[in-house]
Amino acid sequence: MSELTFPASSAAMLESRLPPSTIASETSRPFVTLTFATSLDSSLSLAPGVRTRLSGPDSKAMTHYLRSRHDAILIGVSTLLADSPALNCRITGATSQPRPIVIDPHLRWTPSSSDKVLEVSRLGNGLAPFVLTGVSSQDLPAENVALLEQHGGKYIHVPTEIGPNERMRFDWHDVFRALHHAGLSSVMVEGGGQIINSLLDPLYHELVDSVIVTIAPTWLGQGGVVVSPDRLQDSAGTPIPAARLSNVSWHPFGEDVVLCGALHA
Amino acid sequence: MSELTFPASSAAMLESRLPPSTIASETSRPFVTLTFATSLDSSLSLAPGVRTRLSGPDSKAMTHYLRSRHDAILIGVSTLLADSPALNCRITGATSQPRPIVIDPHLRWTPSSSDKVLEVSRLGNGLAPFVLTGVSSQDLPAENVALLEQHGGKYIHVPTEIGPNERMRFDWHDVFRALHHAGLSSVMVEGGGQIINSLLDPLYHELVDSVIVTIAPTWLGQGGVVVSPDRLQDSAGTPIPAARLSNVSWHPFGEDVVLCGALHA
Repeated sequence: MSELTFPASSAAMLESRLPPSTIASETSRPFVTLTFATSLDSSLSLAPGVRTRLSGPDSKAMTHYLRSRHDAILIGVSTLLADSPALNCRITGATSQPRPIVIDPHLRWTPSSSDKVLEVSRLGNGLAPFVLTGVSSQDLPAENVALLEQHGGKYIHVPTEIGPNERMRFDWHDVFRALHHAGLSSVMVEGGGQIINSLLDPLYHELVDSVIVTIAPTWLGQGGVVVSPDRLQDSAGTPIPAARLSNVSWHPFGEDVVLCGALHA
Repeated sequence: MSELTFPASSAAMLESRLPPSTIASETSRPFVTLTFATSLDSSLSLAPGVRTRLSGPDSKAMTHYLRSRHDAILIGVSTLLADSPALNCRITGATSQPRPIVIDPHLRWTPSSSDKVLEVSRLGNGLAPFVLTGVSSQDLPAENVALLEQHGGKYIHVPTEIGPNERMRFDWHDVFRALHHAGLSSVMVEGGGQIINSLLDPLYHELVDSVIVTIAPTWLGQGGVVVSPDRLQDSAGTPIPAARLSNVSWHPFGEDVVLCGALHA
């Protein structure tokens, strides 16, 4: 597994956007960074489950640098099932690994020792995941629990609510509370589309401390996995913008641009 | 009508992206600049026909500066009907006005002397439009022709073809050939969504010399008028990116970013 390097000058430009080295003990949730890469037409990938190389090599190093600066990295179960990602940090000089967090309300993932994320944890190159699920402990398959715990991971129960599509889902307040209780003081939310779009809902803006978006100068075309939050309307029913970043800065980065901002003041 | 100013330093950054002061006489089409402003989720507006303030005041001045550097500005008839735009140039020091070009294959626009674009031409603050239509000269309503010509505008016939949705449409080669014949050596294509998406089709990349996109740090949300070209597939049916810019540069511009590039080498 090759190591990546991230230039100190680029790290300096991101410093004010990252979790502080000490997080005040009275906070009841982790510092939350939302980060992802899209095309100009706001697609994460060409189609669900299709891994799409969007941004350049500098951008990959940035992702791993950002991982080195967070206690945890969070993805939705769809991304885990589609990509089988390693979810570790391969930046040169990283002294610890982030904890992978998988959002899996309905327990769609059946862990297997051949999953990349468990493989890297066995090799000492990463940590096994904490899986957040709505399934209660007594209903969890014992072999799943055992496999995860052998690797140093575990299941964490989070209450579910009924979403607009009749599917059970989490409230982000509960998710971040659970991470806080697990001793994780910063989390980098990486995707996929459903996870990102739900966090961009105004209900949750106060929970997101930092947003870092990489944009590549390409149009993937219709039918991709698109980042675009649900439509918002004012009291008269007129559509209004769903989210706007404050404290904005743009950083050209190879062929791409990196956008930094915040969703709350 | 207030005048706008555009800083010389910003103009300098755009210079290499603009039509040269003399365009070689052997070219058979105008220099084409494609320019528009979107949200992070690639929306031009919150909904069809809803004018949406996306970018900051600097960006408005840039649009008018760009207009001052082109012989013509081109929009689709839907944008004309939705916005009744003035389609003139209000930059301080502009010595001539660009010719508005309206793409109206089916003659949806019935000109009226109260239309903004005709009003500004009567006041000497802009030019009356050339309307490109598939309707043949003998079928044009005489009163439309007369009103347009009184203002210095005219209809230009362009052949139509049947598009995928059974609607008649133009081939962009024919459109730019018609503009060349009309003595226009540079054109700035401004929108709306259908016009932009059709020009991003690989069929037409060779016709687009310069792309200038302003991106505002906001998500409009689902349901907006989106810039995203038709999906492209390789011979095996696998989706591939529809368009990628070359010769890319990014310019932070107030809260927005301006992206410059080209669709052909």
